[in-house]
Amino acid sequence: MISATERLDDISVIENDLLSVALFKNGCQTLIKQLASGAQYQKHPKGKILFVNQDPAERFYIIKSGWVKLFRETVDGTQAVVDILDRGHIFGEHALFNNGLYSYSAEVAEAAEIISLPMQYLQKELQQNNALSLNMLETMAQQHLKLDKEVEHRSLQTAPQRIGCFILRLARDTQDDKITIQLPYDKTLVASRLGMQPETFSRALSKLKNQTGIRVKGSIIEVENLSPLIEYTCNACSSNYPCKDLPPEE
Amino acid sequence: MISATERLDDISVIENDLLSVALFKNGCQTLIKQLASGAQYQKHPKGKILFVNQDPAERFYIIKSGWVKLFRETVDGTQAVVDILDRGHIFGEHALFNNGLYSYSAEVAEAAEIISLPMQYLQKELQQNNALSLNMLETMAQQHLKLDKEVEHRSLQTAPQRIGCFILRLARDTQDDKITIQLPYDKTLVASRLGMQPETFSRALSKLKNQTGIRVKGSIIEVENLSPLIEYTCNACSSNYPCKDLPPEE
Repeated sequence: MISATERLDDISVIENDLLSVALFKNGCQTLIKQLASGAQYQKHPKGKILFVNQDPAERFYIIKSGWVKLFRETVDGTQAVVDILDRGHIFGEHALFNNGLYSYSAEVAEAAEIISLPMQYLQKELQQNNALSLNMLETMAQQHLKLDKEVEHRSLQTAPQRIGCFILRLARDTQDDKITIQLPYDKTLVASRLGMQPETFSRALSKLKNQTGIRVKGSIIEVENLSPLIEYTCNACSSNYPCKDLPPEE
Repeated sequence: MISATERLDDISVIENDLLSVALFKNGCQTLIKQLASGAQYQKHPKGKILFVNQDPAERFYIIKSGWVKLFRETVDGTQAVVDILDRGHIFGEHALFNNGLYSYSAEVAEAAEIISLPMQYLQKELQQNNALSLNMLETMAQQHLKLDKEVEHRSLQTAPQRIGCFILRLARDTQDDKITIQLPYDKTLVASRLGMQPETFSRALSKLKNQTGIRVKGSIIEVENLSPLIEYTCNACSSNYPCKDLPPEE
């Protein structure tokens, strides 16, 4: 099942990776050591399925590099993308509050390095360590707000505006008015991330270009002037630009 | 500001109301007593604004009866409904993890009895009571899954299927094949809850009637035979009917 598995000799590397995750800030030294001792570091090619919706969840995961797609399949075989995550993100851990079952499937979307960790240590520590529970509450509340805004955007923004919002979040830390952005993964995946069919995505991107003057060359997007893009997109959102309540897309 | 406020003489009534909320299961006796002593019981008419998005959050709320709409407004004045909640639901408490600010506005959607509670006691107790933190994690994880499914449905279900899903959740505990359902609040509100314009909702409801044989008389929906409704709706969802991962609509 596993494409490439290594037990790292140098456990301290894994410990450092864990400490960089918001869930494990403020220490939890014992837990970090336990998790690191049971960690598996794996390199996976694109397309690798890590687990399937409703599988019993014995492990949870941290992304070191690459992209992972979380999704569910409908009864008639269509795929709904729940999220697409990159470096530093954690996934699978919610199963602890879902009768021990994953609530989505996970697939490597672009070649990825992933650390998998035994769930039992996390579960045990949560039972006795309130600082960890509070960290998890904070993390979950942020994820909740992100999802909440997603529902808002699906209600109120048009398809071109949703693409505009995606681009603006990629550009977020830029101070310049003129910017060049590289899409983080291929357009089909961006379309699924935004809940669009590829043909809807293409039509919407054309409309966005016409309305805001952005230029698209393959996976490169050039924005000469941010203002029309912001005005076109953010008027249909409850936050002003630059939005504080959504994490950047990368 | 407050339409009708009472400090209940019989605090034990409020204590019982609190104990019926999932967040406060397993006791937390001290907290329950503190909260009850600072509780305000209020009757509000439809339309009453309880708080506004980004207000500092000094209190959180429990619904005793009626309906409350959580929503946000876009820069250009359109309203996005975040959720519509009824009896037993709690809201406003997430502000604890959002820099102490509400992340939505709350308005009474149908005349409601509401208990408001001081946030400071909840915040203090969370700092030292891991059982409470775990309860809150469980509650938040369930809310997360509900939102997650909402995003899935917005991606994959058509407008008539989304209405079908709403009806099926109202019917959930019914064992009969032939059922009569009353919409819990007016159709305009159902439309906003499902992220649709009223005219989209009307067209979609007509299509649903044609496709599944349900009958609609005002706010009453008659379903002669559940099977066509289930087949039409649930094939475009990742859960089988009856779904375990979504709470009933009422």
